[in-house]
Amino acid sequence: MERARGAQDRWWGAAPSERATAIEAIADEVDRHVEELAQTANEETHLGMPRLTGEVARTTFQLRMFAGALRAGSILNAQSEASVPGPPPQGHPAITRRYVPIGVVAIFGASNFPFAFGVVGGDTASALAAGCAVVVKEHPGHPRLSQRLLTLARSALASIEAPEDLVGSVAGIQEGIELVGAPGVRAVGFTGSLAAGRALHDVAARRPDPIPFFGELSSLNPVVITPEAARTRSEEIAAGFVESMTLGAGQFCTKPAVLIAPTSAGLAEKAIALLEGLPGMTLLTPDIAARYYQGIATFVGRPELKVSSSSTTSDGQVTATIIESTLEEFLNPDSPVRHECFGPSAVIVTYEDPRQALEVLNIDEGVLVGCVHGVDGEEIAADFLHALERRAGRVVWNGWPTGVAVAGAQMHGGPWPASTQSVHTSVGLNAVYRFARPVALQDWPSWVEV
Amino acid sequence: MERARGAQDRWWGAAPSERATAIEAIADEVDRHVEELAQTANEETHLGMPRLTGEVARTTFQLRMFAGALRAGSILNAQSEASVPGPPPQGHPAITRRYVPIGVVAIFGASNFPFAFGVVGGDTASALAAGCAVVVKEHPGHPRLSQRLLTLARSALASIEAPEDLVGSVAGIQEGIELVGAPGVRAVGFTGSLAAGRALHDVAARRPDPIPFFGELSSLNPVVITPEAARTRSEEIAAGFVESMTLGAGQFCTKPAVLIAPTSAGLAEKAIALLEGLPGMTLLTPDIAARYYQGIATFVGRPELKVSSSSTTSDGQVTATIIESTLEEFLNPDSPVRHECFGPSAVIVTYEDPRQALEVLNIDEGVLVGCVHGVDGEEIAADFLHALERRAGRVVWNGWPTGVAVAGAQMHGGPWPASTQSVHTSVGLNAVYRFARPVALQDWPSWVEV
Repeated sequence: MERARGAQDRWWGAAPSERATAIEAIADEVDRHVEELAQTANEETHLGMPRLTGEVARTTFQLRMFAGALRAGSILNAQSEASVPGPPPQGHPAITRRYVPIGVVAIFGASNFPFAFGVVGGDTASALAAGCAVVVKEHPGHPRLSQRLLTLARSALASIEAPEDLVGSVAGIQEGIELVGAPGVRAVGFTGSLAAGRALHDVAARRPDPIPFFGELSSLNPVVITPEAARTRSEEIAAGFVESMTLGAGQFCTKPAVLIAPTSAGLAEKAIALLEGLPGMTLLTPDIAARYYQGIATFVGRPELKVSSSSTTSDGQVTATIIESTLEEFLNPDSPVRHECFGPSAVIVTYEDPRQALEVLNIDEGVLVGCVHGVDGEEIAADFLHALERRAGRVVWNGWPTGVAVAGAQMHGGPWPASTQSVHTSVGLNAVYRFARPVALQDWPSWVEV
Repeated sequence: MERARGAQDRWWGAAPSERATAIEAIADEVDRHVEELAQTANEETHLGMPRLTGEVARTTFQLRMFAGALRAGSILNAQSEASVPGPPPQGHPAITRRYVPIGVVAIFGASNFPFAFGVVGGDTASALAAGCAVVVKEHPGHPRLSQRLLTLARSALASIEAPEDLVGSVAGIQEGIELVGAPGVRAVGFTGSLAAGRALHDVAARRPDPIPFFGELSSLNPVVITPEAARTRSEEIAAGFVESMTLGAGQFCTKPAVLIAPTSAGLAEKAIALLEGLPGMTLLTPDIAARYYQGIATFVGRPELKVSSSSTTSDGQVTATIIESTLEEFLNPDSPVRHECFGPSAVIVTYEDPRQALEVLNIDEGVLVGCVHGVDGEEIAADFLHALERRAGRVVWNGWPTGVAVAGAQMHGGPWPASTQSVHTSVGLNAVYRFARPVALQDWPSWVEV
């Protein structure tokens, strides 16, 4: 923390172009080591080389997106308002509103995105873009990768004579808790489980000087199928659903966790048949695999739920699971189907009447993303879209929730428990506004540099 | 809450122009009753008719500023990003980022601004602009005014056939706590004391579903005088200081609480002499007067502090107090001079060397506003300005902290304890972004209205 605060002090007035140079230096250094980094990540996460190589590309693309926006002046611009003569309220002095760094940011990366939500992932990129120093809590699921990324980032910073302590790290659960409570930490970025996120949220809130906790925690992302879509393309929908729910072995915050479809479409049967043809999957860590089966166990033996067979292979691999739930059961907030099960499982709820589907969509709980599969001009599709807008940070038409595009306008967040601060995003250029604090300069003299 | 949620449901999709019409209807209705409202407020607060009439004007100006921005499309604009063909990370679907209301907002107004931070003050204006329903906790310092403003706002809404329950209220301490904990409340706006704000912040954070608490709590606003300014215009500075610190009987969150000046300028003597000529002041409530004297009592009898004489007149009026503090005492975070004393008091710290002044400016505590009085081209003035930027939400050159202009670019907030969320403001157009939640619409079909 002492070194991070020192770096923050030195870097506080760094111009947007200097910040951009620092971010690009990190991106370049990571890109020079793609193969090595992906291999280390694969040894620690088993996510596979194609996915991991792609994730490195996503991560450096994201870093460069922030650098480019800083250079183009499309983020963090100052806003000037000339003085207006006369008495208030109409009259007022000259005001320039500019952004300064919030201070040192603590960042907790995710198990499932060792790069994109890792040491130099989106949270770090947006904090560096805001001019902040960051202290990363290394994820225990990929300690070697974390250390390697840290070394690369720091040497990249040193190579352009920026303070290398702009990126530092701690490891360990207790150390993470201490980091959130540490004097000098001014904000927290977190991506992880509801339990861990809630605990750290509470540490941030209980400080003598509470700090904002920007956490992305848990989301039961709904996908609803309209009657017309089900009638005309249920095979295609079943295939898309299975692909999306098993992507990354279902270890995505954007996994389609709940499929809501007309009973007549038989989507549960179709999905189960497709899943049976898939090979076993290795989850990120033995802990995550154990929690996955604990989750599945909560569904078993309840008359309201029908659980497709699931099994563990001898080498610890798992298979995917479909849970068919009655409408009533899903509407009960205390049902196990209302808890996120991290891994390749999904709940299917069927409806006879689209109004029942609306009831499921209207439950009072935030989600990161919701999807509607429908047909152009179908009135109920519009109702479904509008219902999802009230609960979700992202609403997708005729697509699947997995795959959050790294685009400037992207929004990744949502009402609790999807995220702790639904007016902010952790992906896209607006992520920078979590860590940049506005200051109004009143009658600021022209001879003093801002 | 039930009625507020009902109104929120009905109003959720209200277009910006509809929201503007509702806000303008409230402003018009308030303007039609200026005299009556100011009289009621004066009976309850003793702030005087000129100030209160002016505050009504400020309040309706503020309401109309939001309405105008909604009509002009200068806030809450959607941002569209066309699809980019090809694989990720470069390729991505079409995304439209638009704002939706966060939901019902609980608003706690301030004792000292019965209008501008009251039932239809800045928090309500920005929440209504975001499309939210609000439930106001009535301030016990002006219950009749609160009820009257509520009635006017609701009848204004009814007159244009908007849901009158877009503005509701509760009264009572326990009711306020329950409001922050109530299911359906999605955010809190608060202006008040550190103790009350901290307590309500904690209620919001401890909810099963924590909600953002946007609180403006407490600030020891510093004003620093450069050697050249002190040498050339210390009489003018003493007069400006006394005027600003006694404005509204010192009951402003922006009161200049700490004056840092060269010892040679004799500003304490000059200020005390000016204060002696002032009539007694009536504080907002007997409670506030009692707390003011409790605050003054903490300064008395300490060798490090010199307290100017203060007295209470027979009719409960108070006089202003200057506390001269040693540098060392002010640098001690546990000293009573480091606590806000609400009312007409201020601390004066003097320096021999400008580096001592920088030490005082650099204490690790947020403030709403800081001011520098200097002379053009004076190098130390630039250092003072930059030091204040690191701690304050607003930095003023050659002016006084009181009087927050209601301008679009205004920033009113700052690091803890000035506010709970330093990246947000409670004054100015950006206040709306506390209560508007972005949603990314992915491949949204053109035939469905947004």
